[in-house]
Amino acid sequence: MAIGKESLKNLFTVGKPKWRTAITRVEPNNIITRGHSQEDLIGNISFSEMVYLLIKGEMPLKKESKMLSAILVSFCDHGVTPPSTQAARLMASAGSKVHACIAGGLLAFGKNHAGAIEESMKALQNYIQNSGPEYDWESLAQNFVNEYIKEDVKIPGFGHRYHYEDPRAIKIIKLAQEYDCIGKHTQLALAIQEVIFESKGIKMNIDGANSGILSDLGFDWRTGTGIFMIGRLPGLISHVYEEKVREPEFRKFFDVEEIYYDGQEDRQLGGL
Amino acid sequence: MAIGKESLKNLFTVGKPKWRTAITRVEPNNIITRGHSQEDLIGNISFSEMVYLLIKGEMPLKKESKMLSAILVSFCDHGVTPPSTQAARLMASAGSKVHACIAGGLLAFGKNHAGAIEESMKALQNYIQNSGPEYDWESLAQNFVNEYIKEDVKIPGFGHRYHYEDPRAIKIIKLAQEYDCIGKHTQLALAIQEVIFESKGIKMNIDGANSGILSDLGFDWRTGTGIFMIGRLPGLISHVYEEKVREPEFRKFFDVEEIYYDGQEDRQLGGL
Amino acid sequence: MAIGKESLKNLFTVGKPKWRTAITRVEPNNIITRGHSQEDLIGNISFSEMVYLLIKGEMPLKKESKMLSAILVSFCDHGVTPPSTQAARLMASAGSKVHACIAGGLLAFGKNHAGAIEESMKALQNYIQNSGPEYDWESLAQNFVNEYIKEDVKIPGFGHRYHYEDPRAIKIIKLAQEYDCIGKHTQLALAIQEVIFESKGIKMNIDGANSGILSDLGFDWRTGTGIFMIGRLPGLISHVYEEKVREPEFRKFFDVEEIYYDGQEDRQLGGL
Amino acid sequence: MAIGKESLKNLFTVGKPKWRTAITRVEPNNIITRGHSQEDLIGNISFSEMVYLLIKGEMPLKKESKMLSAILVSFCDHGVTPPSTQAARLMASAGSKVHACIAGGLLAFGKNHAGAIEESMKALQNYIQNSGPEYDWESLAQNFVNEYIKEDVKIPGFGHRYHYEDPRAIKIIKLAQEYDCIGKHTQLALAIQEVIFESKGIKMNIDGANSGILSDLGFDWRTGTGIFMIGRLPGLISHVYEEKVREPEFRKFFDVEEIYYDGQEDRQLGGL
Repeated sequence: MAIGKESLKNLFTVGKPKWRTAITRVEPNNIITRGHSQEDLIGNISFSEMVYLLIKGEMPLKKESKMLSAILVSFCDHGVTPPSTQAARLMASAGSKVHACIAGGLLAFGKNHAGAIEESMKALQNYIQNSGPEYDWESLAQNFVNEYIKEDVKIPGFGHRYHYEDPRAIKIIKLAQEYDCIGKHTQLALAIQEVIFESKGIKMNIDGANSGILSDLGFDWRTGTGIFMIGRLPGLISHVYEEKVREPEFRKFFDVEEIYYDGQEDRQLGGL
Repeated sequence: MAIGKESLKNLFTVGKPKWRTAITRVEPNNIITRGHSQEDLIGNISFSEMVYLLIKGEMPLKKESKMLSAILVSFCDHGVTPPSTQAARLMASAGSKVHACIAGGLLAFGKNHAGAIEESMKALQNYIQNSGPEYDWESLAQNFVNEYIKEDVKIPGFGHRYHYEDPRAIKIIKLAQEYDCIGKHTQLALAIQEVIFESKGIKMNIDGANSGILSDLGFDWRTGTGIFMIGRLPGLISHVYEEKVREPEFRKFFDVEEIYYDGQEDRQLGGL
Repeated sequence: MAIGKESLKNLFTVGKPKWRTAITRVEPNNIITRGHSQEDLIGNISFSEMVYLLIKGEMPLKKESKMLSAILVSFCDHGVTPPSTQAARLMASAGSKVHACIAGGLLAFGKNHAGAIEESMKALQNYIQNSGPEYDWESLAQNFVNEYIKEDVKIPGFGHRYHYEDPRAIKIIKLAQEYDCIGKHTQLALAIQEVIFESKGIKMNIDGANSGILSDLGFDWRTGTGIFMIGRLPGLISHVYEEKVREPEFRKFFDVEEIYYDGQEDRQLGGL
Repeated sequence: MAIGKESLKNLFTVGKPKWRTAITRVEPNNIITRGHSQEDLIGNISFSEMVYLLIKGEMPLKKESKMLSAILVSFCDHGVTPPSTQAARLMASAGSKVHACIAGGLLAFGKNHAGAIEESMKALQNYIQNSGPEYDWESLAQNFVNEYIKEDVKIPGFGHRYHYEDPRAIKIIKLAQEYDCIGKHTQLALAIQEVIFESKGIKMNIDGANSGILSDLGFDWRTGTGIFMIGRLPGLISHVYEEKVREPEFRKFFDVEEIYYDGQEDRQLGGL
């Protein structure tokens, strides 16, 4: 077969690498992540440091790694109250495999559940980026709150449907002070809390606290949901395991008496 | 750059097509599915015929297409009782997007929910394939049932946790008779029903009936879960839509009083 | 145990139905969907009619059911080019179960793939709803296009990365004319096409065409992604099945030579 | 309304708690996980300790926590070669949200990818449990291998498609020795390696090594996939983030020239 200029060009185009990555280079018998051989990393860094290295591309300082570790622990579990946990257990009961149950649980991390972290990080990061060099926290916070009030939208990271004071938020802020990890974003978040608490009696929840600190640690808001998922995964796995080994298979999660059929009313609503 | 023999060989290796398919050929301004231009298919065949064409690679006879259509309709919805529907609504309430809610619903199609179709098709197809040329339905069915009893496993496709007689199964068998679509697999399934009903008072459910008929239509058991999913998708979508437009966001699906914490007992179980 | 007033009240609260639905009422041996016994529906209505009934709550006219059937067929498959199909085949090759592969495929229906239908339906429905009683299609379309140009955003439903003219769009519009199913939304979409084609040489794709017609059939934009998923599911299932029965398990979808590691450059970008 | 005996009984039935858990008790302003207030856990235990506590229900010894930490780090990332990573990036490119991309990635953890851990843990745990009080590792290992050879099935946890020697396996075994965490399961796995290496020249991979050690740490095989997912999540998240911020949206992951349509051949295969 003769290879003409054109077909050669096609071959090159076809052969051009489509996949590039700066995360991990795989060679035979060698795996290099962010410039470090995995052999060297295993046993020498903690899992939290690995999280930091993978996502940020560099090793954390000691205080940063302690802070991230505390944040991951703080996301761990909230019993069977979250929809993600309920969904994962429903799937476990239906007999799905563990990876499908966990994937299903993650799919419940919508706007109203776990979505607040990303939204809050985005808002804090945009706000700080667009502020002048001098920070008047009180008026910045007031402006921040006013924007949400004007659009009648819930401020992400504040209030909790089960807690008046989220005990995790209080502890994590205390640790951030202790580890000297409070920067502009957390300061803004704390200032916002003062404004909201005064006007509405609502306090910061764990998402709000972690949003500020993660931002101060330099995490892009686009990684917020991901970091939450790392923290919550062990909890989800425990629940799937508990459902599988402890409850009867394919159990009814509610009684038929708890279902209310109201097609009639519905048709009046215009055939939803 | 000089191109040596070796590098040329590499280029060829790299450029070798990795993706092959017999389903659809895509050309600029032309899409050919199973040998038919999509332009010709749209408006000329029903959706059920398209399902048959895509999965089996050929057009169905009229009676086959009517049968498949009835089967798809029979899978449509079972209210809020299935875990898939509950899971999808949980995700909708949590504010996940429609595609995530539906994917989440499908992930509840585990061994105990929707899994019976594939299992039942597999069993019927294996049994018929390994039987001799003469069929003594009564003894075949008795052997079939005995194998499950010996291993103390539920026979897939029989019994329903909400119905003593599954009205869909009765209707679909009647239609299969009317459309002349009953072959060896359905005959075996009906013979199994006689054995089970006599000994346990349990009847065939919609999965059992459709497993037999789909097998007689020539569908490989590996496509059974897929066909069920096509049938159930409209129901799942209606529920996700209903949840999104009619219920408050992030509602509590049960009260805290309904949660029972029993860590104490658990620790006695050895630290589950 | 004595039952005081308070505990009775709690029991009532706890026992209050949490789940309501207007879609399907499940009774022992009877399943009623949108007011019709499923026994009556199976064998008497087509799958497209069932889709219409489930989502809209009422039976379609004959022309509406033919139109919806053509739309579902038009969504069926686009070979291995879409990310959803590639993702589903990757999972099939990795040995995941069918329901997990399909759920995984659906998760690729993001903003850039399949997302256009919902977005286009939303835009068309909002535009028509907010327009005055008289329709000057030309200026309406011009305004519509201008808004997207102003924000430098791609107009959803126009242009296709593989087709200059999407053959499915042409056919489906022709059918809509034939079935007398063209209303205000499709008229607006066609007027938009004229504006875009004149200025940019870009034509309507199948998402754009179906968005207009589905809107004219009265489908809420929130159901658009769902209807697309129903249409595409058979294609995804065929691909998963093809991968499972025809290709080697756990095959490499690309060669290592196709991976380009560029951590160096990356670090210069600030340690992504 | 008069409350009769029957309706009271119903109320009790309806009101009976359906959800029980031993993992986390949620009270207003207080969250207790496995008997510890989360306030006390945050900042006082590492993430690996939290994983251990959640899944096993008790706090690890220091050496166990160091071991689990090393295991989690060893699972972190394998570049873009795994189907899970490719799938997650496809979804990110298609514009899906982060939680959907990650869920999609997890759905590629099928039998052939990540499935080996659970399978290997199950086999090792069953084997040790059913062995007599005396362990003749050599003959036990030979029997183990023979069973797989007899059924012509790949032994899970051995061999790697990119590495002749998995550098992570070597390091993790070395650490297990150092931390004094090698028990019967790992000993059996090492004995199996000797048998396989002698006959086939194949070595233990990271799944094989971790299966032994996790079993020796007392983790039930049903939790193996879950623990792998915790370790791999940070890698998946980095890839999704990298795809989103660094690559063009909705890019083509391969050229059309790389697709090979062979419907003809297929039809000869019997209309797959």
